[in-house]
Amino acid sequence: MQSTGNKRSSCPSFRLREVASMYFTMLMVFLVILVVALQGTAPRENYFPYKVPLDPQSFLELSWNVSYPEQVVHFQLLVKEPKFGLLFGMSDRGEFENADLAVLWSDGHSSYFGDAWSDEKGQLHMDSQQNYQLLKAHRTPEGLYLVFKRAFSTCDPKDYLIEDGTVHLIYGILEKPVRSLQAINISAIHRGVQRVQLLKPNISAPELPRDMKTMEVRAPDVVIPSQETTYWCYMVELPDSFPRHHIVMYEPVITAGNEAIVHHMEVFQCAAEFDSFPHYNGPCDSKMKPDRLNYCRHVLAAWAMGAQAFYYPEEAGLAFGGPGSSKYLRLEIHYHNPLVFKGRHDSSGIRLYYTATLRRYDAGIMELGLVYTPVMAIPPGEAGFLLKGYCTDKCTQVALPPAGIHIFASQLHTHLTGRKVATILSREGREREVVNADNHYSPHFQEIRMLKKVVSVFPGDVLTTTCMYNTEDRNQATVGGFSITDEMCVNYVHYYPQTQLELCKSAVDLGYLQRYFNLVNRFNDEEICMCPQASIRQQLSSVPWNAFNRDVLKSLYDFAPISMHCNKSSAVRFPGEWEKQPLPRITRVLPESAPSCQPAVGPPPASPALVNLGRVKAE
Amino acid sequence: MQSTGNKRSSCPSFRLREVASMYFTMLMVFLVILVVALQGTAPRENYFPYKVPLDPQSFLELSWNVSYPEQVVHFQLLVKEPKFGLLFGMSDRGEFENADLAVLWSDGHSSYFGDAWSDEKGQLHMDSQQNYQLLKAHRTPEGLYLVFKRAFSTCDPKDYLIEDGTVHLIYGILEKPVRSLQAINISAIHRGVQRVQLLKPNISAPELPRDMKTMEVRAPDVVIPSQETTYWCYMVELPDSFPRHHIVMYEPVITAGNEAIVHHMEVFQCAAEFDSFPHYNGPCDSKMKPDRLNYCRHVLAAWAMGAQAFYYPEEAGLAFGGPGSSKYLRLEIHYHNPLVFKGRHDSSGIRLYYTATLRRYDAGIMELGLVYTPVMAIPPGEAGFLLKGYCTDKCTQVALPPAGIHIFASQLHTHLTGRKVATILSREGREREVVNADNHYSPHFQEIRMLKKVVSVFPGDVLTTTCMYNTEDRNQATVGGFSITDEMCVNYVHYYPQTQLELCKSAVDLGYLQRYFNLVNRFNDEEICMCPQASIRQQLSSVPWNAFNRDVLKSLYDFAPISMHCNKSSAVRFPGEWEKQPLPRITRVLPESAPSCQPAVGPPPASPALVNLGRVKAE
Repeated sequence: MQSTGNKRSSCPSFRLREVASMYFTMLMVFLVILVVALQGTAPRENYFPYKVPLDPQSFLELSWNVSYPEQVVHFQLLVKEPKFGLLFGMSDRGEFENADLAVLWSDGHSSYFGDAWSDEKGQLHMDSQQNYQLLKAHRTPEGLYLVFKRAFSTCDPKDYLIEDGTVHLIYGILEKPVRSLQAINISAIHRGVQRVQLLKPNISAPELPRDMKTMEVRAPDVVIPSQETTYWCYMVELPDSFPRHHIVMYEPVITAGNEAIVHHMEVFQCAAEFDSFPHYNGPCDSKMKPDRLNYCRHVLAAWAMGAQAFYYPEEAGLAFGGPGSSKYLRLEIHYHNPLVFKGRHDSSGIRLYYTATLRRYDAGIMELGLVYTPVMAIPPGEAGFLLKGYCTDKCTQVALPPAGIHIFASQLHTHLTGRKVATILSREGREREVVNADNHYSPHFQEIRMLKKVVSVFPGDVLTTTCMYNTEDRNQATVGGFSITDEMCVNYVHYYPQTQLELCKSAVDLGYLQRYFNLVNRFNDEEICMCPQASIRQQLSSVPWNAFNRDVLKSLYDFAPISMHCNKSSAVRFPGEWEKQPLPRITRVLPESAPSCQPAVGPPPASPALVNLGRVKAE
Repeated sequence: MQSTGNKRSSCPSFRLREVASMYFTMLMVFLVILVVALQGTAPRENYFPYKVPLDPQSFLELSWNVSYPEQVVHFQLLVKEPKFGLLFGMSDRGEFENADLAVLWSDGHSSYFGDAWSDEKGQLHMDSQQNYQLLKAHRTPEGLYLVFKRAFSTCDPKDYLIEDGTVHLIYGILEKPVRSLQAINISAIHRGVQRVQLLKPNISAPELPRDMKTMEVRAPDVVIPSQETTYWCYMVELPDSFPRHHIVMYEPVITAGNEAIVHHMEVFQCAAEFDSFPHYNGPCDSKMKPDRLNYCRHVLAAWAMGAQAFYYPEEAGLAFGGPGSSKYLRLEIHYHNPLVFKGRHDSSGIRLYYTATLRRYDAGIMELGLVYTPVMAIPPGEAGFLLKGYCTDKCTQVALPPAGIHIFASQLHTHLTGRKVATILSREGREREVVNADNHYSPHFQEIRMLKKVVSVFPGDVLTTTCMYNTEDRNQATVGGFSITDEMCVNYVHYYPQTQLELCKSAVDLGYLQRYFNLVNRFNDEEICMCPQASIRQQLSSVPWNAFNRDVLKSLYDFAPISMHCNKSSAVRFPGEWEKQPLPRITRVLPESAPSCQPAVGPPPASPALVNLGRVKAE
């Protein structure tokens, strides 16, 4: 080893002293980190408020907690029938390729734990940084418990960044011993995906009123159909002359044993125009279902797997009952039964907590995003095509009270090709804050999410909702519309105080789309029927989708004026001129959030940690 | 402090053991890092092969070395007249806002050193990670020496990423004591910018021939004009019947004292068509300069500040002399004299090393990128507009030998609005490697750069050269052309063995640009003269540059077929059809290089290191 002291004799005293003090400082910093780590993690290892089954049989049960000050998630994984190990991890959309994984594996003698990643072919590699840190591993009569933690953001480019919104969790079960991590054949194991919102908001439940009552809207002993996907519809009737109340909270009621099958549930209120609705109890897509049930679309409550109770803010409640509101409710349950269990009974539903002592404000729901019209279209073969819907300054100016409204929850919505959704608030031409964003949005996991921070919107503000679509598996343009194969771009925002504004959405001006068809015709020497009887859908289907026509459609949407739907109810617009409106001008966008990362302190690169699983018995 | 031991009694023995072993491992890793750090840095602190003056008066002299295994640059800064400290750092294009800085400052009593950053207003802040690490500080009769190091890439998002290509170094001198880092008013200090290629290639000089001769092409005692910018032209004549030689190396010869003023120099060979060229010794833009000097454009040698000697690969040399080559050379020197020194004399130039024993291969220079034509245009007001020039598979198929050619050096070239330039090699539709790339390209710093790795190009390969332009300060379209206010996108690649292919460049098909003008006319209801007498330049100047027209021009360039210049000399094309060629299809791009970062080990955040400057006297 070389010495540094004798290299230059000009200032040995200074350098030695500096070096020594530097290293002492480093050691101190290091020790302080250790102490903080010990202090910080201890209480986090025993309290896991959130829980989901990972697999349809509930063999793997995940619980977790989130520490925002530390920017860390603590996981507790219960393995009910431990075999020779398991994989747990995250990836962009639930793929097993390019995934970030914690792996526990046994060679038959010893067990190992390590942070790994899978490459684009699904081959596993040990991670150069160990960011999943094992904290505990012990057997109990229920099964094997693993407790580990993971920073939201690591300094390792191979790692998944845990963000707000949906996280696609993946798991796999090792049924045979393996020699090494690299020997695991990820495509041959029993495996699956579960979607959750990992970063739950850290909101304390507001105080509930003393005169609170509850009502359970539950399916009455349904025999879950033995098919993968069922949407079950059940009609409920409120008592006659049920007066106006405020819903202040609701929570899921899941029949024990069905936790892994009940995927999501919604309670809708029916339209007040109709005096009565038929009773119905059966699949929503049955031919026996009365058509009138399609008029039960006003969301009262929504729950999806992994979500907890939903609390309204202390000063607001959701009105139901009373004159001018229908006494009919529709419960819709999505049963996800991939293992095709037969004869499983279920009586799950939603428990509403409501009060007759009306709170200060009615809560409202407003629809932001795109109008359901075919003028907003996505070319085929796109990996990530963006559409934007605007709630313009002119509409918020007309429709919002001077004191503004306060958005406290949001439900994002697209159909099958939706991949990302975000709504951003702008004021005076500058983006100010994100209302809600999901970079891993899935149309199969639509929950009402409490916002981490209430967003206030004032007259003159702009709300821009952007949706990203993937149409790589389609060969025709996908247009806006109601059909499940059409697309939507919607954010249902929950806010108070309620206003008359029910819908603040946009679509490109039709005249400009016609200019586009004209342009395509002339530039490509192609024939798109410009005749008046051709529908937009037909015209779009005759566009030859080359790179130029695709790019120019993008440019059109970024440039052409819009038609605004600034509506009191879905038919009645606020007074004003809403056609050929200019696009909102945003001169300054929010900075890309580059979360600071936490380098891992763990075993050196590529060396798994030996785990003692066998010795310790249950108490 | 809380204890973790009594939280869960199920497996205390396991946990304590695990925890203890984990921390011992961490301590060991830590100690190993210390030892490695001590070993690694020692020899790097005394050898600095590269050197530039930072300021025009050479008060600050920077030397440095590069360690690729450690991914670290070691800097030695000589401050000839130390005052109350200085700033040294890097930023995207030499701005003092959003810059990454090492700061030495004195409050009049003590001196401090710290890693800092400036925000968008130029306010200084202490960095949360100390990535500039001070290694030595000592006074000598020459001045104060500071030695510090910096990783190429840090884990701090505020830090500059040191990449290949140009780095804009910034400096500032503190002439008064300051209370704190935050008290430094960056806009009020004496400051400046210097461009260098920091990451010099780590190439060992090839062996030189024994019969090597030298020739100095130098300006004869020029009085440097007392103005900021002068391009000086001087004609040199080779001896009569000077036979064919190979240049194997060249290096700058700078008159002592003018190191900070001689900005760059080039030696051009004149065209062989003319029997004689007038002698000339004067400014290149003088009205007295004979027009014929414009025919001296074939680069023989080029040097820019900070560059070292240029070596040809062992198996190749640049031919000059002999029949078929002009005996006239033109030396061009760019004097950069911002302090407007008067009466400064200079005899700088370039020393050529050449041999009569011809090497195995002639080296050649090939021009890649865009044809000089106004059909390639940049709209006004663009922050980063991209233009691409192609050397297609069809051209390389026709023109390159089966064994391919080997590119060993490259000189990127644009005019005033160029901001980034890159050439990428693709094969079978997939990007394979970067030939040369500069993310901080400056038209004021064009040097021939040795490639870190020789790139071989085979028949059928594609070379795509992309240039990014900033036209935010212009209100008319900028078109391709020869004028300094027009633009170019060129990469002069130096390669061997020499082929007949002198030029492999492209431009959009003229017919498609006419369709674009047509489309703009119809879409915008505007009037662009489509009459045959209007020039492209005139038509472009009548485009109303809104977002749509701008975006559609981009889409056109990404879609329309190209006209290829696959030329033997600037007038003669290789046989074949070169009009309306399809754009090369690239289905797979190179991954974004996310360099792994090195978290700093240094003082805790926001606390500067005290530096002992005053005590130690010179030996």
